[in-house]
Amino acid sequence: MMHEYFMKIAIEEAKKGFGAVNPNPLVGAVLVKDGKILSKGFHQIYGGPHAEVNAISNSLITEDTTLYVTLEPCSHFGKTPPCTELIINSKIKKCVVATLDPNPLVSGQGIKQLKDAGIEVIVGVLENEAINLNRVFFKFIKQKIPYIFLKVGITLDGKIATQNYSSQWITNSLAREKVEKYRNFFSGILVGANTIVQDNPSLRCKISGNRDPYRLILDKNLIIDEKYKVIQDNSDKKTFIITHEKNSNKDIFHKLEEEFFIKFITFSDNENLENIFKKIGSYNIDSILVEGGSAVISSLFKEDMFDGGEIMIAPKILGDNSAIPFTNGFSPLNIDNGINLRNIKINLYNNNVGFEFYKEEGCLPV
Amino acid sequence: MMHEYFMKIAIEEAKKGFGAVNPNPLVGAVLVKDGKILSKGFHQIYGGPHAEVNAISNSLITEDTTLYVTLEPCSHFGKTPPCTELIINSKIKKCVVATLDPNPLVSGQGIKQLKDAGIEVIVGVLENEAINLNRVFFKFIKQKIPYIFLKVGITLDGKIATQNYSSQWITNSLAREKVEKYRNFFSGILVGANTIVQDNPSLRCKISGNRDPYRLILDKNLIIDEKYKVIQDNSDKKTFIITHEKNSNKDIFHKLEEEFFIKFITFSDNENLENIFKKIGSYNIDSILVEGGSAVISSLFKEDMFDGGEIMIAPKILGDNSAIPFTNGFSPLNIDNGINLRNIKINLYNNNVGFEFYKEEGCLPV
Repeated sequence: MMHEYFMKIAIEEAKKGFGAVNPNPLVGAVLVKDGKILSKGFHQIYGGPHAEVNAISNSLITEDTTLYVTLEPCSHFGKTPPCTELIINSKIKKCVVATLDPNPLVSGQGIKQLKDAGIEVIVGVLENEAINLNRVFFKFIKQKIPYIFLKVGITLDGKIATQNYSSQWITNSLAREKVEKYRNFFSGILVGANTIVQDNPSLRCKISGNRDPYRLILDKNLIIDEKYKVIQDNSDKKTFIITHEKNSNKDIFHKLEEEFFIKFITFSDNENLENIFKKIGSYNIDSILVEGGSAVISSLFKEDMFDGGEIMIAPKILGDNSAIPFTNGFSPLNIDNGINLRNIKINLYNNNVGFEFYKEEGCLPV
Repeated sequence: MMHEYFMKIAIEEAKKGFGAVNPNPLVGAVLVKDGKILSKGFHQIYGGPHAEVNAISNSLITEDTTLYVTLEPCSHFGKTPPCTELIINSKIKKCVVATLDPNPLVSGQGIKQLKDAGIEVIVGVLENEAINLNRVFFKFIKQKIPYIFLKVGITLDGKIATQNYSSQWITNSLAREKVEKYRNFFSGILVGANTIVQDNPSLRCKISGNRDPYRLILDKNLIIDEKYKVIQDNSDKKTFIITHEKNSNKDIFHKLEEEFFIKFITFSDNENLENIFKKIGSYNIDSILVEGGSAVISSLFKEDMFDGGEIMIAPKILGDNSAIPFTNGFSPLNIDNGINLRNIKINLYNNNVGFEFYKEEGCLPV
C-alpha cells in the first residue's frame, strides 16, 4: 500500500508534462525516506532532463532512500545521459518502477543494470495506471503511427450539424472544456477540409499557457486557400495540409507553401490512411485528435484506424435525415453487424454525456 | 428532520402501489408515536381502501400519535367513505401531509375539515417528492388526458433499427430491465402498427406478479390482422386499436372486434393527437408508455405531446442513413431550432446511458 501511495504521487507528477514532452513519454519520480517525500520531479519538456534527474538532483540522498519512478529508467545515451548511471552513482539502494520500457530492444535492460549494481528493484506497482499514462508513447515508439483519438459532439439523433451546417454549439461549455484538455494533450488536431470551409476554426488550444497542437487538414482535392484562419495564422508553422499528390502542381499549393509556410503531406491513389498517418508520424507527431467532420470520421471508422475516442452527446434532437450525421457510408443489415464500441467509460458534463471508448483495455489519463 | 424521515417512509409505502391503483393516486401513510412507527399502510389497488385506512385500522392510537400521509386525506364519498371522517373519529391529534389534493374543487377541504375538528395539521413536508410520486394522477385528474412518456432505445447515431428493421437488441439487459419497470408503472403501452408488423411484440410486463398494461396500437390504415401476438393473446381484453374511422366498415375491423375482443378507438381527419389521447383517457387509462416506432415518436414530437421520456443509448453505430431514425420529419436550419429536451436526468446502465427528460421540473419515481 505504501508503494502504491508514493507511485500515485509520481504518476500525478508525470501528468504535469501533458502536451509538452511528446513524442517522449510522460514520467514522474519521487524520492522517499522514512515515509516522507524528499523531492519530486517530472519530465517537463521534450529533450529536457528526465524525471529521475529532476527528482534526484534536488535532495540529500542516504542509503535508506527509495526512488519511485513511473517508467523503467533509461539505460542508453539519447538526448541525455542514461538515468541508470545517475541512480547507480547516487546512494539509492531501492528503486520502485511502475512499468518496463515498451521498446523491446531495451525493455528490462535498465532494471538489469540497476540490479547488477546491487540496487533492490520492484517492478509493477500501479502498472496499469502507468501504461494508461503513456498509451500514446507506447504505440508510437513501436509502430511509428500516431495514436488516433476521435472527438465529436452530436445531438441525440447522431447529427453534427443541421442540413446547412449550423453546429455552434451542440455540446455545453463543460464538454467543450474537456475538448480543450484533449487539444492540450494530443500533438495534433486533424479535421477535414469541409470543416475548415464551414466553420473556419482556429484549431488552437484555449487553455492559457499551453502550447497549440499541430493543425492537420485532410484536403484530398485541395479546396482550401489563404482566406482561412489556419492558413492566415501560421506564424508557428504548425499547419499541415494532407492532399493528393496530383495537387502538387497547382498554384495554390505553391502559394500556401511559399507564402504561408504550410507544410504539405501528399499521398497517391494507392495509399491508405495508415500510410498517411505514418507520414504524419515522420514529423514526430505522436498523437492526433480527430475533430471531424463527417467524411473524415467515416473514413477512420471504415479503415478501423481509431485507438479511441469520445463521443459527446447533448439532449437535442434535429429530427432531420438531411442533417449531417457524424458517421455514414455503412449499411449493416443486422443490428449485430454495426460498429460496437468497446471499453466504454461514461463521462458526465451536466446534461451532456460523453462515451469514451478504446480499442484496447484501459483509458487515457486526460 | 423527523417529519421528513417519516414522510420518506410513507412515500416508500406509496410506491408499493405502482401500476395497481391507476387512475387513483399512489398514497402512503405512517402512524408514529414517540418516534416509533406503530403501523404503515398504502393504497394497494384501484377502488380499494385508502392508505390512511390501511395504516389506521391496524394500530392502537393514543392522543400523542401522529399520522403522516403523502396526499391530503379525501373529504368526500367516492368508492370509499371520506378519510377525514376516519381520522377525526380516531384519537389522532396531529396530521402531517406532504401535498394538497390537486383537484381544485376539493383541494384544501380535507385539511380544513381536520383543522375544524381540532387536529393540528402540517402541510408541505417533502412536497416535491410527493408531487413526483403522483405526476400521472395530477395531470389526469385535471386534464383527463393520459400522462405520455416516451421510451426508446437507440444507437449512438440515433437509429432504432437497421434498414431492414433488425433491432434486437440495441440496448443491454440492464436498460431493458428498466423498461419492464416502466411497463409496470404506466397503465398502457402505445406502439405504431409498423412495430407490430416488424417485431410482433407481446407488449406485456415481464416482471413476475405484476399486471400487464393496456396494449394500444396506433394503426391509421388498419394494416394489422389476427396473426399477431397482441391480437391472438387478448384473453384479458386489454388490446386497443386506434384507427381512422374510415376503416370501421372493413371486414377485419369487425373480425378483430367480434372474434378477438379488440376494442377500437376511431378518429376523423379533423382530430389531432390530443383528441385521440382524450378518447384513450375516457377508458380510465391515465398514463401511456410510448415505445415507438419512428412514425409514432415523430408525430408526438411534432404535436409536442410528451410529458417526459427516456432515450436509452447503446455504444453502437450503424453509420447508415437508410437505417431507421428514432425521429424524423423536421428540418431545422439553425442548431438552436432543434428540439431541446429539458429537465434532464442521466441514468447509467453499465455501458448504456439513459437521458430522462420532462416538460416540467421534477421526475417520475420509477
